Amino acid sequence: MSFGHKHILGIEQLSREDIFYILDTAESFKEINTREIKKVPTLRGKTIINLFFEASTRTRTSFEIAGKRLSADTINISASSSSVVKGETLEDTARNIEAMHPDIIVMRHGASGAPHYLAERLDCSVVNAGDGAHEHPSQALLDLFTMREKKGRLEGLEVAIVGDITHSRVARSNLYALTRVGARVRLSGPGTMLPPGIDRLGATVCDSLEAAVEGADVVMMLRIQLERQSRGGPLLPSLREYSRFYGLTPEKLKLARPDALVMHPGPMNRGVEIASSVADGPQNVILDQVENGVAVRMALLYLVAGGEAPANE
Amino acid sequence: MSFGHKHILGIEQLSREDIFYILDTAESFKEINTREIKKVPTLRGKTIINLFFEASTRTRTSFEIAGKRLSADTINISASSSSVVKGETLEDTARNIEAMHPDIIVMRHGASGAPHYLAERLDCSVVNAGDGAHEHPSQALLDLFTMREKKGRLEGLEVAIVGDITHSRVARSNLYALTRVGARVRLSGPGTMLPPGIDRLGATVCDSLEAAVEGADVVMMLRIQLERQSRGGPLLPSLREYSRFYGLTPEKLKLARPDALVMHPGPMNRGVEIASSVADGPQNVILDQVENGVAVRMALLYLVAGGEAPANE
Amino acid sequence: MSFGHKHILGIEQLSREDIFYILDTAESFKEINTREIKKVPTLRGKTIINLFFEASTRTRTSFEIAGKRLSADTINISASSSSVVKGETLEDTARNIEAMHPDIIVMRHGASGAPHYLAERLDCSVVNAGDGAHEHPSQALLDLFTMREKKGRLEGLEVAIVGDITHSRVARSNLYALTRVGARVRLSGPGTMLPPGIDRLGATVCDSLEAAVEGADVVMMLRIQLERQSRGGPLLPSLREYSRFYGLTPEKLKLARPDALVMHPGPMNRGVEIASSVADGPQNVILDQVENGVAVRMALLYLVAGGEAPANE
Repeated sequence: MSFGHKHILGIEQLSREDIFYILDTAESFKEINTREIKKVPTLRGKTIINLFFEASTRTRTSFEIAGKRLSADTINISASSSSVVKGETLEDTARNIEAMHPDIIVMRHGASGAPHYLAERLDCSVVNAGDGAHEHPSQALLDLFTMREKKGRLEGLEVAIVGDITHSRVARSNLYALTRVGARVRLSGPGTMLPPGIDRLGATVCDSLEAAVEGADVVMMLRIQLERQSRGGPLLPSLREYSRFYGLTPEKLKLARPDALVMHPGPMNRGVEIASSVADGPQNVILDQVENGVAVRMALLYLVAGGEAPANE
Repeated sequence: MSFGHKHILGIEQLSREDIFYILDTAESFKEINTREIKKVPTLRGKTIINLFFEASTRTRTSFEIAGKRLSADTINISASSSSVVKGETLEDTARNIEAMHPDIIVMRHGASGAPHYLAERLDCSVVNAGDGAHEHPSQALLDLFTMREKKGRLEGLEVAIVGDITHSRVARSNLYALTRVGARVRLSGPGTMLPPGIDRLGATVCDSLEAAVEGADVVMMLRIQLERQSRGGPLLPSLREYSRFYGLTPEKLKLARPDALVMHPGPMNRGVEIASSVADGPQNVILDQVENGVAVRMALLYLVAGGEAPANE
Repeated sequence: MSFGHKHILGIEQLSREDIFYILDTAESFKEINTREIKKVPTLRGKTIINLFFEASTRTRTSFEIAGKRLSADTINISASSSSVVKGETLEDTARNIEAMHPDIIVMRHGASGAPHYLAERLDCSVVNAGDGAHEHPSQALLDLFTMREKKGRLEGLEVAIVGDITHSRVARSNLYALTRVGARVRLSGPGTMLPPGIDRLGATVCDSLEAAVEGADVVMMLRIQLERQSRGGPLLPSLREYSRFYGLTPEKLKLARPDALVMHPGPMNRGVEIASSVADGPQNVILDQVENGVAVRMALLYLVAGGEAPANE
């Protein structure tokens, strides 16, 4: 069996089988990251361009390390220094980059759908590293990888996702991925942060963080984007209030199953959406998420470049 | 025969034979860029520093990919983060970089002559990636490469270059290169954008875009630098007027030979110097230019590092 | 004998033997930098992250070249594009990076002690590339390397360090290193730039530049940080005055031994702390310092990664 996708645009386009195929492939790559020699020649002679229209140290670094450990040549392009500021269209920018024969463009963009727009027009593979408030597929896949690793299964898991669901590509990609593999998703957040109709995607919308967390196997806290908050309205009162109702404290975490995992996509606002003692507590798997991110991204780069998953099961 | 130049500072320093030697070498490199494994060990263990005092995603990326496909180690230094801001002289900055034993410094600078100044003072090779309004030799060479590839010859071609000739290093380098290989150059642009005495360099100055384009084999449109325009004077009226008289439309293109090539160094302002339908039309070779840029830059890096062109003709 | 340090946080933590061990190792690496193939496979498959919270072209480039010549994969992260701006703590940023399994983090930070703080918390090696006004160990080691190379010894050398001693991590690291290997240090600078109690670290504080330079084997001029000066108070009068009393001119240099070395960590303010004729004069070894910097940093990266110095003496 080979992986049938040339691009990774979103979880929405992936079947249950695709997801497990990626997770299994990532498993075989994970071990490379702890070796003495952290490098395999798999993508030697391939060119990967990290085209980031929004700054993201974490995701860019993770993809860059993934590419380098596969022996690919990686080139970083950031929007601030790019031709975009000179009035060029997105398509022209991308076509120009493609003319230099990259094998894969890893792309982050502030507009939902930007990677899909390009994938239709370009010959090379496109991997979505986050598009607007739409999808962040590699994040959801590393989240599932981590849950499966820690819990031994995905099916039947009760996963609470708490925070600004409306603006979170992490939430959206996880919602698609988790429902597809048979996990159950509960969403919670202030009314203004819950998009209408989100329950039609298979999630249960809860009235409170407490309702979402109760009995959960996984509690995933979303980042409050202080940048966004600070632009309009009085900042601190609403932040304090947010934290009071939607911040994860040790007391609230006790409502979840005793062995529940605490997850966060980072970067964390300690004391806002998550108490420091929870972020550092025994149930947190936040750094496992980051660690697994490299393995999952190695798998994605490898598979879109035409690789096959190792035989297993 | 071996290439006698340690530096590539401008086309002005290159003979007809040099130019063909570079184009022939680039031809042998072009094929590498479409291979499964896009990499040859030619410059393994060499250090190439991309020293960019002006931002340029396109040219920097092209040189970076060229260096990596030759297996060189490439290091990017951009002015914004450099010691220049700390008051160091250009020569001190460059001497410091040279003390780290790079083999080649690829340099872009806002001042005409900056690479020449350094080449006189440094032991390593210097490749000019654009200096002020002076020269942009790799751009002209990729333009010639593309013309020769598409037309089968350079001698006798009628090439129209349209736009802001005065401030265009692309125009200047092309003018030198094209006249040297026996092509004929016609220039056109608003009076304020045509430097006095330019006809003494062997070009024909035309009264209008139409006169320049008529019967041409190649129509090369220059980028209008909106950045420059917006600084002084009323913007939109003059832009509209510029577009009306010096923008390439399908109608105006009909004045050229039916098989004329349309070229643009990028990034394009669609609807200003070039109509979208022309930029995407069957005569455009704009992405070929970008593609050939990598091959031409591989050739330049290879040759200044002491390589020899493959035996041919 | 093997090198017992996992981190290079400062000279303060290094013994006389450690220092010579590093210098000897650097000697064996220096020659690689002038080879035709400037690359050895020593750190192949290792991941080095250059985590710079302050811009520093020179030091970052030197470490990046050192890493690449050892065949490591190097990844640059600069603060401006990092999660720090999103409110993440330093420890969280570093832990996240560590979760991607780098072997070495090379770190520059504006706060004294930042690398020490991280080294206590991270499993990977940390190399301090400058922390606040505290230490800059690789700079001091390259300075000692250069002195030993040029003078044949370190013991008994009379070294004058002139400038803003209070704010200089270069001065502090050199003071530790030089006293440890048996050189004698004289310090000179305006009263406001001499920290009280500095003489207790083994240096002689001199009343004037002339007193410090007289009979010296080495004159090390520190950079006046114009950035710092310009923030408060009237700039030019004090700069002129500084230059008059603490700038190194050919006349003042004559007070030193005839074969005295002139050193500067760069970037230089010509005409401020050092006259151009001195900076370019026969006694200057400023570019040797830069050249040796790559070899010394190769040695540091190699040793913290578990390498052993070559057998010698």
